[in-house]
Amino acid sequence: MSPFPLNCWYVAAWSHEVPSSGLFHRTILGQPVLLYRLQTGEAVALDNRCCHRAAPLHLGRQEGDNIRCGYHGMLFNPQGACLEVPGQTTIPREAQIRRYPLVERNNWLWLWPGPPEQADPALIPDNWACNHPDWRYVPDTHTWPVDWRLICDNLLDFSHLSYVHAATLGGSTEIAQAKPVIDRIPGGLRVTRRVRDVPPAPYHRRFADLPGNVDRWFIYEFLLPGILLMHSGLKPTGHRWDEMQGALRLESCQALTPETADSTHYFFMQAPGFGHTDPDLPAAIHASLIQAFAEDRAMITAQQAMLKLGPSPMVAIAADAALARFRQILQRALQAEGAPLPDDGGNASWA
Amino acid sequence: MSPFPLNCWYVAAWSHEVPSSGLFHRTILGQPVLLYRLQTGEAVALDNRCCHRAAPLHLGRQEGDNIRCGYHGMLFNPQGACLEVPGQTTIPREAQIRRYPLVERNNWLWLWPGPPEQADPALIPDNWACNHPDWRYVPDTHTWPVDWRLICDNLLDFSHLSYVHAATLGGSTEIAQAKPVIDRIPGGLRVTRRVRDVPPAPYHRRFADLPGNVDRWFIYEFLLPGILLMHSGLKPTGHRWDEMQGALRLESCQALTPETADSTHYFFMQAPGFGHTDPDLPAAIHASLIQAFAEDRAMITAQQAMLKLGPSPMVAIAADAALARFRQILQRALQAEGAPLPDDGGNASWA
Amino acid sequence: MSPFPLNCWYVAAWSHEVPSSGLFHRTILGQPVLLYRLQTGEAVALDNRCCHRAAPLHLGRQEGDNIRCGYHGMLFNPQGACLEVPGQTTIPREAQIRRYPLVERNNWLWLWPGPPEQADPALIPDNWACNHPDWRYVPDTHTWPVDWRLICDNLLDFSHLSYVHAATLGGSTEIAQAKPVIDRIPGGLRVTRRVRDVPPAPYHRRFADLPGNVDRWFIYEFLLPGILLMHSGLKPTGHRWDEMQGALRLESCQALTPETADSTHYFFMQAPGFGHTDPDLPAAIHASLIQAFAEDRAMITAQQAMLKLGPSPMVAIAADAALARFRQILQRALQAEGAPLPDDGGNASWA
Repeated sequence: MSPFPLNCWYVAAWSHEVPSSGLFHRTILGQPVLLYRLQTGEAVALDNRCCHRAAPLHLGRQEGDNIRCGYHGMLFNPQGACLEVPGQTTIPREAQIRRYPLVERNNWLWLWPGPPEQADPALIPDNWACNHPDWRYVPDTHTWPVDWRLICDNLLDFSHLSYVHAATLGGSTEIAQAKPVIDRIPGGLRVTRRVRDVPPAPYHRRFADLPGNVDRWFIYEFLLPGILLMHSGLKPTGHRWDEMQGALRLESCQALTPETADSTHYFFMQAPGFGHTDPDLPAAIHASLIQAFAEDRAMITAQQAMLKLGPSPMVAIAADAALARFRQILQRALQAEGAPLPDDGGNASWA
Repeated sequence: MSPFPLNCWYVAAWSHEVPSSGLFHRTILGQPVLLYRLQTGEAVALDNRCCHRAAPLHLGRQEGDNIRCGYHGMLFNPQGACLEVPGQTTIPREAQIRRYPLVERNNWLWLWPGPPEQADPALIPDNWACNHPDWRYVPDTHTWPVDWRLICDNLLDFSHLSYVHAATLGGSTEIAQAKPVIDRIPGGLRVTRRVRDVPPAPYHRRFADLPGNVDRWFIYEFLLPGILLMHSGLKPTGHRWDEMQGALRLESCQALTPETADSTHYFFMQAPGFGHTDPDLPAAIHASLIQAFAEDRAMITAQQAMLKLGPSPMVAIAADAALARFRQILQRALQAEGAPLPDDGGNASWA
Repeated sequence: MSPFPLNCWYVAAWSHEVPSSGLFHRTILGQPVLLYRLQTGEAVALDNRCCHRAAPLHLGRQEGDNIRCGYHGMLFNPQGACLEVPGQTTIPREAQIRRYPLVERNNWLWLWPGPPEQADPALIPDNWACNHPDWRYVPDTHTWPVDWRLICDNLLDFSHLSYVHAATLGGSTEIAQAKPVIDRIPGGLRVTRRVRDVPPAPYHRRFADLPGNVDRWFIYEFLLPGILLMHSGLKPTGHRWDEMQGALRLESCQALTPETADSTHYFFMQAPGFGHTDPDLPAAIHASLIQAFAEDRAMITAQQAMLKLGPSPMVAIAADAALARFRQILQRALQAEGAPLPDDGGNASWA
């Protein structure tokens, strides 16, 4: 059994990471996964272990739509069925490797690690902003050496913007003081945080001329297993929330996929919108995000090291509301799968 | 429970390691410790974990006498009490971090990891030589990747000077052949080793003009948890031990503080005395000591690697008398605390 | 108890690795071994741990035929008996370190880790080609971070030459398709694989002018604990197997000695024979072998990483015949020693 929920769609890769010909591989939920494309362009995900002697298939080669193991030459088709065993004419009945349900949608390859018959593409979160002509962005993938739940926690409590990102994305303590509205939605939560009449964030100055204070908003869905779909922005202060004159809007899609219990693949983009005309803006937004992510990574890596030292008290505060509810949603998803409840990474107090 | 005795004063840092403003941190007995100074200069030791989500406090900042967590902004006073939680007005009753008793004396910061009410400053060993105008020295701190008890063993049997330090501090096999006198004193042992009519050690030639043989002495207290206070020296041979004409005396204070079960902070100094006039002598003595410590570290690191391979016989010899008695003193201290007896690092034969 | 068979001769070193004076050390079957030579040139193997405090003896020094521990100066003779303890005149009865039976034969030092009284030199495999004037070679030793049994598997199934070594030693799929003859012989197996009318291997072109196809043969004994003694070669196609006109013959001796459960010392040579006159040929053969070994190492290291992820199905195919039989021989050898059966490295299906 797994410490991760299995009946979810996980992002396995950006579309561009898997080439039109050749083998790509990545560890996902502790399992080695081979990703490649058929001659039609369709992407396929197989277990990256040959069923003969566990050699990784990515060390072999693609032959048309099939994969040849590079150790002893067994050949498999995209369904994982063995077609050839060198030196013999019969194929052992059990010579079969696992194929994962995989759907390519909006530039993400979504993989279903649970029972294939339960893989319903209708459940895939709608990351439309990754694939819309009005929203241009620089896509990126990082791998962080931390439990994916600690990054979920981070994304569910933006009060940290005032402290971790004081010099980048944040910039004022009002963000931490604002009370977000938290709504339960299918598969997760919607978090709405609005702050009025605050100084722009330091990173705003890289791409906008802002003489005075601004209003800022962060509205996002956070869905199992760790998908953030965010609509945020800023505009000159002093107007109604629905007046968008002079606003800069941003769309961000972020997906967390556990590599192992202690490491996480982080797929992300943030796109500026609303008809801006600066062709360098998407790259500038990406550069700012990278800088802020380095701040998060340093904090969460250090936090995980502390949690590894032994049990630590976890005093609940109001800012934990969203992350505590998401941890409950996650625990219930695991229970529903009959999975053993995982070590809670030090969070037993509000599990 | 801990494999280390807790009802002892451990050296946490040299005074100069903790700046007058700003956060210093170090792992001590497997626990993360934050060290900083109040505006009065008084040093404070707190658990380095925020009680909210275990973020390390050293990534936050000092605000006056208080500490602001760098993750979500909680503020703590020097007693570890929470003063502010961003986004709410009430402070949870249990929002409190641990404060360690800490005493600054003779340029060492002494920390008590046991129950605070038992922390009696009268029990602090007297490292007066670290703070005396006649004894000038270069202070230093190393961290070695070994069980602190193996360094205790090393310091309790100077027969190794003849072999490990043949080319540096030692120089003749007479040191190994000398029989030390061992006395039980409160908190540990006193070891007295005198050798007559031997060649000077190689390192003596770096700072003294010694035409003939010398007499050497090493007299030290070795106290729980691993504190060495040594009076040593050399002088031309052929005189009574209490005639100090032409002698070079040295005072050395050394303190071992486990970082973890397998690594040790080593605080040390060695000061030449008796009215020498060479201003470079303290640095030369320090350089020689560093060279010899590298010899010890190589040997003890290799020894620990051997002990990790599995149980090894440990044949007792006469030279073990002091280290065997100190191991007994340590075991009794642990028993008195009700601690489980630790794995003895392969030394069960004379535990 | 050990996961390795103990009643076998293991190669501990090439003769040239142990100098005529001075201390050499290596971990073998998880145990630290000291190797050195007496003044007569005879090689000796002792436990590399001093019986006093487990200091590694290789940090000490050779004094004539004896070894002085570098920590506290105890002196041992080549039988492992203690001759001197500094600071005392009596020698503790139990002051003795283990000596391993060691035989130097054909440029390999063979060590017996089992009960010394069972160490029969008549059981040493005959690596004559390592010591014959007609067969010149470059000797080498590598250490690979893998379970030695995975290298045994590799050497027992040359079908991998067609895939792993397609660009070096292999070159055609006929090698994988050929059916080897497998014979049980004392201590292991003989494997005979012949292929007719195939293109030369890529590496053949480095040292032979071969206008057309060739016949190739690989005949080897593979003996416990992991010794390969191979006679191979190639010649123009179209003749009987016993006609050696125009043939290039190669002798190869390879020995696997576990360093630990997950790392292996690999001693090897491959010598060209039959009166070739190119003085650079042995070095060219060695260079080709090194290149191919890098291919094997990459594959087996990746395979071991996969096996460490968890249980993997192992579908048996015809090509496994020799390796499966050798695993049985190994299991029976362990059972005969009363050893617990080791974790099979993922191979339980045909253990």
